[in-house]
Amino acid sequence: MIVLCRTDATPAQRDRILAAVRGLGVEPHVREQDGRFVVESASTSDAARCDLERLAGVERVFAGEPGAHLATSDHRATRTKVRVGDVVFGGPETVVIAGPCAIEGRDVLLEIARAVKAAGASVLRGGAFKPRTSPYAFRGLGEEGLRFLAEAREETGLPVVTEVMDPRDVPLVERHADMLQIGSRSMHNFALLAEVGRTRKPVLLKRGMSATIDEVLTSAEYLLSGGNEQVVLCERGIRTFETSYRHTLDVTAVPALQARSHLPVCVDPSHASGRRAFIAPLTRAAVAVGADAVMVDVHVRPDEARCDGKQAILPEEFAALVRDIGALDEVLRRTASARSPETVP
Amino acid sequence: MIVLCRTDATPAQRDRILAAVRGLGVEPHVREQDGRFVVESASTSDAARCDLERLAGVERVFAGEPGAHLATSDHRATRTKVRVGDVVFGGPETVVIAGPCAIEGRDVLLEIARAVKAAGASVLRGGAFKPRTSPYAFRGLGEEGLRFLAEAREETGLPVVTEVMDPRDVPLVERHADMLQIGSRSMHNFALLAEVGRTRKPVLLKRGMSATIDEVLTSAEYLLSGGNEQVVLCERGIRTFETSYRHTLDVTAVPALQARSHLPVCVDPSHASGRRAFIAPLTRAAVAVGADAVMVDVHVRPDEARCDGKQAILPEEFAALVRDIGALDEVLRRTASARSPETVP
Amino acid sequence: MIVLCRTDATPAQRDRILAAVRGLGVEPHVREQDGRFVVESASTSDAARCDLERLAGVERVFAGEPGAHLATSDHRATRTKVRVGDVVFGGPETVVIAGPCAIEGRDVLLEIARAVKAAGASVLRGGAFKPRTSPYAFRGLGEEGLRFLAEAREETGLPVVTEVMDPRDVPLVERHADMLQIGSRSMHNFALLAEVGRTRKPVLLKRGMSATIDEVLTSAEYLLSGGNEQVVLCERGIRTFETSYRHTLDVTAVPALQARSHLPVCVDPSHASGRRAFIAPLTRAAVAVGADAVMVDVHVRPDEARCDGKQAILPEEFAALVRDIGALDEVLRRTASARSPETVP
Amino acid sequence: MIVLCRTDATPAQRDRILAAVRGLGVEPHVREQDGRFVVESASTSDAARCDLERLAGVERVFAGEPGAHLATSDHRATRTKVRVGDVVFGGPETVVIAGPCAIEGRDVLLEIARAVKAAGASVLRGGAFKPRTSPYAFRGLGEEGLRFLAEAREETGLPVVTEVMDPRDVPLVERHADMLQIGSRSMHNFALLAEVGRTRKPVLLKRGMSATIDEVLTSAEYLLSGGNEQVVLCERGIRTFETSYRHTLDVTAVPALQARSHLPVCVDPSHASGRRAFIAPLTRAAVAVGADAVMVDVHVRPDEARCDGKQAILPEEFAALVRDIGALDEVLRRTASARSPETVP
Repeated sequence: MIVLCRTDATPAQRDRILAAVRGLGVEPHVREQDGRFVVESASTSDAARCDLERLAGVERVFAGEPGAHLATSDHRATRTKVRVGDVVFGGPETVVIAGPCAIEGRDVLLEIARAVKAAGASVLRGGAFKPRTSPYAFRGLGEEGLRFLAEAREETGLPVVTEVMDPRDVPLVERHADMLQIGSRSMHNFALLAEVGRTRKPVLLKRGMSATIDEVLTSAEYLLSGGNEQVVLCERGIRTFETSYRHTLDVTAVPALQARSHLPVCVDPSHASGRRAFIAPLTRAAVAVGADAVMVDVHVRPDEARCDGKQAILPEEFAALVRDIGALDEVLRRTASARSPETVP
Repeated sequence: MIVLCRTDATPAQRDRILAAVRGLGVEPHVREQDGRFVVESASTSDAARCDLERLAGVERVFAGEPGAHLATSDHRATRTKVRVGDVVFGGPETVVIAGPCAIEGRDVLLEIARAVKAAGASVLRGGAFKPRTSPYAFRGLGEEGLRFLAEAREETGLPVVTEVMDPRDVPLVERHADMLQIGSRSMHNFALLAEVGRTRKPVLLKRGMSATIDEVLTSAEYLLSGGNEQVVLCERGIRTFETSYRHTLDVTAVPALQARSHLPVCVDPSHASGRRAFIAPLTRAAVAVGADAVMVDVHVRPDEARCDGKQAILPEEFAALVRDIGALDEVLRRTASARSPETVP
Repeated sequence: MIVLCRTDATPAQRDRILAAVRGLGVEPHVREQDGRFVVESASTSDAARCDLERLAGVERVFAGEPGAHLATSDHRATRTKVRVGDVVFGGPETVVIAGPCAIEGRDVLLEIARAVKAAGASVLRGGAFKPRTSPYAFRGLGEEGLRFLAEAREETGLPVVTEVMDPRDVPLVERHADMLQIGSRSMHNFALLAEVGRTRKPVLLKRGMSATIDEVLTSAEYLLSGGNEQVVLCERGIRTFETSYRHTLDVTAVPALQARSHLPVCVDPSHASGRRAFIAPLTRAAVAVGADAVMVDVHVRPDEARCDGKQAILPEEFAALVRDIGALDEVLRRTASARSPETVP
Repeated sequence: MIVLCRTDATPAQRDRILAAVRGLGVEPHVREQDGRFVVESASTSDAARCDLERLAGVERVFAGEPGAHLATSDHRATRTKVRVGDVVFGGPETVVIAGPCAIEGRDVLLEIARAVKAAGASVLRGGAFKPRTSPYAFRGLGEEGLRFLAEAREETGLPVVTEVMDPRDVPLVERHADMLQIGSRSMHNFALLAEVGRTRKPVLLKRGMSATIDEVLTSAEYLLSGGNEQVVLCERGIRTFETSYRHTLDVTAVPALQARSHLPVCVDPSHASGRRAFIAPLTRAAVAVGADAVMVDVHVRPDEARCDGKQAILPEEFAALVRDIGALDEVLRRTASARSPETVP
């Protein structure tokens, strides 16, 4: 059993909570976590648990393994809006994030940034630190890439999102980016989550390739319990038995996460399928299923891309896709349930 | 190596093909399958295989394990249109199939049939033979259910689709139904596929819950090689590690099947998610990703349904959904690639 | 809610049961299934369910979806022994089934049969009806193959097991075989299960490639509720994301099935891995984890095999493996928990 | 295409390699990684690639995406032996690692350490830093735990292995531990892998819960290319559709990793199944399939454990299991192929 106290629980309330746990005949372990008093003990009866939950200073009691709390719709019934510059995730319009998978150089990044801006993107993406399964693959330009990204923001006015992989890089990436991305392979990197949770930058948290809906929420909880409430969740394809495409885009995750959580949900169809021909239909599916945002790989010369070129679409294809998204948004706004309502269902 | 001969290969051509295989130094096994001469042997060089493929009377040569041929876009580059009554699968409009999961009685079926007809469905679904994991679950009304279904067709004018599970039932179901459904659990029931392949009824072939794209096509091949070319493929959710919903709807399968095959593709969002709240968003996703048809469970009193009531939506919810589908169809018709083009890409 | 009555429930008991269900305010649906009276209704309270379970003539009450009953250790606490000729599945020794994947001809079958007999096999396997994903693959010799198999039994004295795929073939296969195999792809072929359940031949029921432990038991339940209690379950690899080997052998299924059920459990390492080099280590793992039987593909000339040759081992490799199995059996007999005890844990 | 140069490639050799790539008409990107010159370019013909591989100073050329090299049996054909104190992983005996999942306190750790030593363990495990899906779960005692672990080593003489989760903690953990564990959730934490690759401590690298065999090897490659060659791979269960047990222990991974790599392979049956009753049979399976080591959770009072108590066995159960392992080792030593031979097959 885990008793999660409120951040404003007084010492007297904490003492009464501890006494109540001891009164159940179980010895509590106590810790301070992210400014929150946490009491852990062997499990007891349901009735005793309910009594504890009614004590002043108690936020939530978990019977067995603790799960998410702040990230859930139990905790907050109105939808969270995440603001990145002037862009709002969780509002009536689908936010479109676009750009190259990896930043490969100053000129090619600026060329792509101008193209996606012209086509109607709202946020620019681009990786300076790239997680790669083999140590011999291109791992990104690092700090130099971040400077190119900042320059692209200055020129286009688009806010930028970029991945941070190492807790030691958080201050550096925070300085250059408008939104920090936690990649799929880092969703269970708890040291990184804790560090990013201490910043006040908006976060794009990608689902691990074999993470359940519950695990996406407990990873978000690390960010929220650290004090960072500006979190957008992102479905990007899961690992299944199917080998005809890289990953299986799990569109059901969108309404499922929206029902369980108050946080906005983004979809990345590019990494999911890994195939250029499927990006447009999957993006349309993401919008139609109710995603609050989509993130699309765009490249001016995909065949020369140093990372994931096979999944990048051309600027002109992207422009057509942005028009589709707008038309779908219009249709969906007319249907009550198609878009995240103000309150969680 | 498998050499598939044309159905019109002459005895002289067959002899020359056999001689050519023997000339490669491998002993052929020969069989007659669905009126087609098939030559099997140990594998040989790529060059030898190419030579064989050029012989008169040869349809296709598979190097190792044989796969699909007639079902693929290699064999036919124009999209197949499947006609069920006046309804066309594979045309510019999304076909909407709706009805109860199981036929529970005459009156309730007629009530649902009228409701889905009024709401705009094109085809009525309803199961008389239900595959159930436990022998103690309700397994359907059998022949009586088929008669109710036929009556519902007479009254509403909607063509009807219903599942056949047992090769011995094919003549019976064929007599009552306009379209035969092969369920997920039967996708690898080769005796059933062979029997249904001998009929000339349109078929709705559902993907097995752990079947790959390749396997969907080889199962379709059993039907096509039997002479039945009226096949609609149906994605209905696959089995993954995620337990928040029954199955994971694999929307990528839609463009993937449309790229590999000339057959129309349907999506069943009801069986995929198993949850009423997700049916409408998933149906919209299916239409947006380019499905040629959708199949939705509808029930007038879902809480009283004897099978899968949790996934059925009400007639009024269904009516709103049909309006969404129409609006999405209109948007998508304006985008070149969003709908199955006349030819396979 | 499903109320399963005892097969010997009297009409008076049935009436009292029906009255009790109606007394809960829910309308029952009634059916007769495999000589058993089954009452189905909307779910009610736990308390009401417990009351029903105590009524005379009631065998079991399922709250929601019905599951397995006769196949579970709730129903029978002593381990079932399945006898095929003189061979006992579920006793102190690991039963070794061996032979070719498919029967390819009389002479090669007899050659293999003699070899596996000499090496120490207890049961001969060989497929006359082969489920193949493509219609163009070799599907077995059919009835001719069954006659060859019977001849091999006469000569070697080994009882024979062979697959039946079509409910219409059950009488034919029953006539020739000592044990009927239900293949992975047929685990959810309920028409076939019902037909085999009506025979009194021992059955080897293979787990579907994406079937859960629960589903293996409900499929077995179809056989047991039909009156056939001679069922051996068989783990043969499941479908996962891993592509380095054909399937992932799930050894945990062995103790899991033995804990949930009283039926013996076999393991097929050949179909699981699909690779010759892995057969011996996986067979040893199967024995060490406590399997009651193993089934191994053996071929005298694997490279000429018409089906799954890559997974067959040579007679001399098989002979060494049988010696390993014997040595492992001896070690494991000394450990109390390593072998199926007389009673289910 | 990636050209990996030898660490001792001379500047003249590098120049000739670069010239050769340019001669193919593709522009190379060049980087220095872990003291190794790496040349990246667009892919070219197979023939050109083979020519490059023959140039002096070239270690390996990857056609498309780079994979593992140093970790594979292509690079080294003799089995690597990893030494931790006097203990040898990869020798004729199964190494047994045992201890509590988490270090909960000084006294309980010493109690368990003495017990596993007495029962025959060779290495003591215990977590000071625990990766937990929820921020509210017990995350370990940190540095204090490491000191308790060092004390347990002093008293028992057992070398100790413990997890490191954060690249910033590597120097601290390195100071106290004899072997560094990279947990499942960190297998793709490339910053951590790089930091641990710079140490010269032996490493236990656990397979990610949805990592393929190939990915296990590329993660090991990060360690080896950093200069740390003392790596033991560890299978600990993968995520599948089956929910009757926490993970599915993939025993086929053992011979598969041993065939692809020269590194020793460990199995963790405790985290795989998450159920006490399955630990002993799964450990026996791991030994029988040929694992070089096993790692077992042991606790003196599992019901009071603050982490994963359900999967810990008691010291007396562990002692019996160690006897089984010894008996199995003896049987397996008699079979040529059952144990890692000196050379990779």
